[in-house]
Amino acid sequence: MIVVLKPNISKEQESSVLSEIEKLGYKPHVMRGVERTVIGAIGDERTHKTLESLLTWKQVESVMPIQKRYKLVSREAHTKDSYVKVRQHFIGNKKFHVMAGPCSVESESQLMKTAEAVSKAGATILRGGAFKPRTSPYEFQGLGEKGLKLLAKAREETGMPIITELLSENHADMVAEYSDILQIGARNAQNFQLLIAAAKTGKPILLKRGMSMRIEEWLLAGEYVLSNNNPNLMFCERGIRTFETYTRNTLDLSVIPIIKQESHCPVVIDPSQGSGRSDLVTAMCKGAVAMGADALLIEVHPNPIEAWSDGTQQVSLDTFSRLVEEIRPFVEAAGRE
Amino acid sequence: MIVVLKPNISKEQESSVLSEIEKLGYKPHVMRGVERTVIGAIGDERTHKTLESLLTWKQVESVMPIQKRYKLVSREAHTKDSYVKVRQHFIGNKKFHVMAGPCSVESESQLMKTAEAVSKAGATILRGGAFKPRTSPYEFQGLGEKGLKLLAKAREETGMPIITELLSENHADMVAEYSDILQIGARNAQNFQLLIAAAKTGKPILLKRGMSMRIEEWLLAGEYVLSNNNPNLMFCERGIRTFETYTRNTLDLSVIPIIKQESHCPVVIDPSQGSGRSDLVTAMCKGAVAMGADALLIEVHPNPIEAWSDGTQQVSLDTFSRLVEEIRPFVEAAGRE
Amino acid sequence: MIVVLKPNISKEQESSVLSEIEKLGYKPHVMRGVERTVIGAIGDERTHKTLESLLTWKQVESVMPIQKRYKLVSREAHTKDSYVKVRQHFIGNKKFHVMAGPCSVESESQLMKTAEAVSKAGATILRGGAFKPRTSPYEFQGLGEKGLKLLAKAREETGMPIITELLSENHADMVAEYSDILQIGARNAQNFQLLIAAAKTGKPILLKRGMSMRIEEWLLAGEYVLSNNNPNLMFCERGIRTFETYTRNTLDLSVIPIIKQESHCPVVIDPSQGSGRSDLVTAMCKGAVAMGADALLIEVHPNPIEAWSDGTQQVSLDTFSRLVEEIRPFVEAAGRE
Amino acid sequence: MIVVLKPNISKEQESSVLSEIEKLGYKPHVMRGVERTVIGAIGDERTHKTLESLLTWKQVESVMPIQKRYKLVSREAHTKDSYVKVRQHFIGNKKFHVMAGPCSVESESQLMKTAEAVSKAGATILRGGAFKPRTSPYEFQGLGEKGLKLLAKAREETGMPIITELLSENHADMVAEYSDILQIGARNAQNFQLLIAAAKTGKPILLKRGMSMRIEEWLLAGEYVLSNNNPNLMFCERGIRTFETYTRNTLDLSVIPIIKQESHCPVVIDPSQGSGRSDLVTAMCKGAVAMGADALLIEVHPNPIEAWSDGTQQVSLDTFSRLVEEIRPFVEAAGRE
Repeated sequence: MIVVLKPNISKEQESSVLSEIEKLGYKPHVMRGVERTVIGAIGDERTHKTLESLLTWKQVESVMPIQKRYKLVSREAHTKDSYVKVRQHFIGNKKFHVMAGPCSVESESQLMKTAEAVSKAGATILRGGAFKPRTSPYEFQGLGEKGLKLLAKAREETGMPIITELLSENHADMVAEYSDILQIGARNAQNFQLLIAAAKTGKPILLKRGMSMRIEEWLLAGEYVLSNNNPNLMFCERGIRTFETYTRNTLDLSVIPIIKQESHCPVVIDPSQGSGRSDLVTAMCKGAVAMGADALLIEVHPNPIEAWSDGTQQVSLDTFSRLVEEIRPFVEAAGRE
Repeated sequence: MIVVLKPNISKEQESSVLSEIEKLGYKPHVMRGVERTVIGAIGDERTHKTLESLLTWKQVESVMPIQKRYKLVSREAHTKDSYVKVRQHFIGNKKFHVMAGPCSVESESQLMKTAEAVSKAGATILRGGAFKPRTSPYEFQGLGEKGLKLLAKAREETGMPIITELLSENHADMVAEYSDILQIGARNAQNFQLLIAAAKTGKPILLKRGMSMRIEEWLLAGEYVLSNNNPNLMFCERGIRTFETYTRNTLDLSVIPIIKQESHCPVVIDPSQGSGRSDLVTAMCKGAVAMGADALLIEVHPNPIEAWSDGTQQVSLDTFSRLVEEIRPFVEAAGRE
Repeated sequence: MIVVLKPNISKEQESSVLSEIEKLGYKPHVMRGVERTVIGAIGDERTHKTLESLLTWKQVESVMPIQKRYKLVSREAHTKDSYVKVRQHFIGNKKFHVMAGPCSVESESQLMKTAEAVSKAGATILRGGAFKPRTSPYEFQGLGEKGLKLLAKAREETGMPIITELLSENHADMVAEYSDILQIGARNAQNFQLLIAAAKTGKPILLKRGMSMRIEEWLLAGEYVLSNNNPNLMFCERGIRTFETYTRNTLDLSVIPIIKQESHCPVVIDPSQGSGRSDLVTAMCKGAVAMGADALLIEVHPNPIEAWSDGTQQVSLDTFSRLVEEIRPFVEAAGRE
Repeated sequence: MIVVLKPNISKEQESSVLSEIEKLGYKPHVMRGVERTVIGAIGDERTHKTLESLLTWKQVESVMPIQKRYKLVSREAHTKDSYVKVRQHFIGNKKFHVMAGPCSVESESQLMKTAEAVSKAGATILRGGAFKPRTSPYEFQGLGEKGLKLLAKAREETGMPIITELLSENHADMVAEYSDILQIGARNAQNFQLLIAAAKTGKPILLKRGMSMRIEEWLLAGEYVLSNNNPNLMFCERGIRTFETYTRNTLDLSVIPIIKQESHCPVVIDPSQGSGRSDLVTAMCKGAVAMGADALLIEVHPNPIEAWSDGTQQVSLDTFSRLVEEIRPFVEAAGRE
């Protein structure tokens, strides 16, 4: 840690800081600068108590950590790209993946129709919500276990592994029984109890970025998964909350090169939540592919206008199949398959 | 709902919108404006499917809801101020309350020392974290049930009711057994399963605002509590996430008059989380009191510099007792006791 | 405009709203909904006074405009893509452009070396700051007219048209004398006097998005240019301000399809300002190209580490020439030259 | 500056950083930590080039400045509170001031009526816009010099000094001729040429915070005024842009204690722009007073509903006079007059 002292403080004020640093287990190292004195406090920041509380003392101007707070998700821990095995597929390898399906599972016919269409168009993994986190208690909350059963049936018929959201610690085992990937949604991205419960199932986890989560916090949420002995983690950007109101969220595609730099885990982009508007989805997908995403997660519905949730961001079956064609040249330009 | 059509669309495009509106159960009402045609779709927006999905059609420019989405928390549902009974106290009445105590319960001596000091200074409710949601898995996660027991003991000794955070659905009954108020933290403000579990205990709920939660979303999260038959709800502002980095969060005091206007529930302000800096806490408290808050929630520690969590935002026992003195004239100016 | 009345208001309260609407020149049209009465106020919102002030009346719940506020920049005004002629080049046509050069013009040798290198690598337009808007008055403020002369000289030697920032109304004529494109920076994006002065020179204008400008506001700032009889406008995204601190700004690539949808003007992406980190620039460029940008604006310096301004975001000559090679397949995949 | 090196780099990589630090005029000081090597670079950061560009080198992980970038506005430069003399008044002294008047000057009768009413109610300074920065070019742009003349006339009749916004460098002398305080608006808060022109008139400057300006940037914009030999500076908070849409802006009252801590200049709060809703203005004023603001800036109109600009945020004459009565007990509680 670096501790910066205020200018013009007394000798006593300085030495009380030095003693406290030593008391907390660090070795202080004093540097006298032009206007301020700076103390390097040497010691492992992950095992020692933080010195940031020194800020409550009047003679301290700022305290800056030096070490990165995440460890297992970091590039330093694992210099090669890691990949996640999902049944017959590997996400994070050379092959590019498209996960597609309805926002919510609504009925057998809606799901099967969508599953067949997206599979035919080129999707490799089927998405569908059975438990839905809804802003209002009066909105459709999902079919629950019945939805999971329909997903499992769709997997059987199309061969596509499935991904669905886990909402409750109490459902972790049940959802893990049916689903191949557990999705942790944006609203639960710092619901650490849920992250731990999900990690413990051993299933691959797709961790969405919270609406106002800094990248460091997102990586640390991922650290909860890896430190609970589950290495099968993917990060999924789905748009952050900003002042802009034209789109529902602002899709932050810069996370692709950033996560690739800081971490070894695969990166997935969700352009549906990311924009909240189906007319922007195709362009977003092209950008994501070009910037190096490992997979896309796209909401598709046979009739978006009558969808039971988030109709504005779901694309129709036709649009989806055109989309897959349109991104193909970019997948190739990115050197993927 | 109001549906605005794009200019220069065909008759067929218009009539297909009208049919769809009728199909979804609304009665359309056409108005021809200067450049655009606007359709009023009459019907209960809380029981009918939203028309927002119409946006996926090329001829539709915008769709605007008319009704408020929240109901039980709204002023319309309950025109008088509601109050919450917490043992011998009523929050939301004329009497102003101060909830104070350590960020985390660390030990019996730390807690007792703090409890006695804050009680003596004028606090009426004791706060203390037993389960702590920490950004990193390597940080102190709280004493768990042992912490709850210490809180109960402190209540016995000081007579102050206690408030502590609920982190996990699985702990709802256990925490409710010890605590007088269940706090739902910012990171779980849209963890709807946790809100439901908390509501079902029947205990008073203090619902913090999520870091990037719009006021409408916050009220709707509160609606999850009331619609699960628990009327004992308080809203607590603890700072929102903005671009500013000087403070940890930006405390949005404007929510006090806004929540008072939109809802009947009491409003509590947390200036400790709200700024992340103990040197700003007193000024924040004065503003909160003047603007009409019903209570404050303040982190106090006997030795902030050695606190096991969030030391930078905890005030010392001395500072706390000065703070209570300093806000007194503002409590009076606000017509409270 | 749509005016929504509160529930349970008196007949008098309603009729006073109706009279005021008529007084302000609109024709009111009443619709009785399930819980609320809604009034459609028919009239041209761009020539009549706004009704939003009705919100100050207790019986009014909300007021919503219907028309778009921008006109000349809109797709409705000009359904085909427009392009901007810059000497021998057309921006907005099939040919993709790269504008490159140093953040600040520092010296003749620095500029010439950069100009030759970027021209050789494939850039078609030379950028360079002569007047620099600096956060602190103690930072390098640019070479001023001397910098403009160096830019003109570099144009002569390389044949590349030049783009440079205009900071002051008083410099509009001087900068227009030397430069082929006038750049309006993010900090001045709503400095309307500067926009008008720039528009009046008749030169092409590159209008950067302000740090926290909504898309509608950006389009309206562009409207200041077109309504001052200058049709040569390009919009340039350079990152918005969010809560994220990993990057200096958050580059919002979604504006590419959005501006293309709402407006006919060309879209340029600045990945240097957009991320503030040279190691992210190449990936950002790929995304921008894939999503349909018309041009890139990239900061390049022979020795970024010793740059007089913004060294962290400038790429070296080598990196730039690799970057041009790396984006080439994406330019082709996007169907551009 | 503090330069943190990445772990596991070579001796050569380290020594090239050390040489570059020396080359740029700093004295390097090496500290070996647990995982990383940290270099303290000793030298005056305000006169030397920044080392932040070192980030473009692969072996450098982060670079952190130590010194504050502002100087003349800082508490270190001037430990006592400074005050600004405006004709017969002093802002920043014990006496609390209320600046009030219409958003725009619309006519002689509108201005005189307002001026008399606010003066009678207790306002001490008259505000009114003659040049208006409007988001759209089709909105009312102010009466210009005619408005200034009306303001001067109102000053003559009521004895209140006047404050009005300066929009253009070219108007600096003209506006300074009529007005007692020059207001720099949020959209021009980093229009440094305008700040310099305003400073040079020698008149008191009220500098509004830009919509997404960090506190450090605001102080540095103020530094442009003081470093151009004009010590008469006031900072005015008027709300920042966040994700919240209930209010037009989010009024950040925490700046009051923060600016008081970092700077010696007076702090003014504008609750009208700050919320954009007249029904929140009174509560905001109470908070501002309690937290230690030196003055308020409030928009008042005889008939807000027919105001030519920003009617939703202007209070009526009656509301204003009640507001002054309601804040009086808080002014007293804050120890002001």
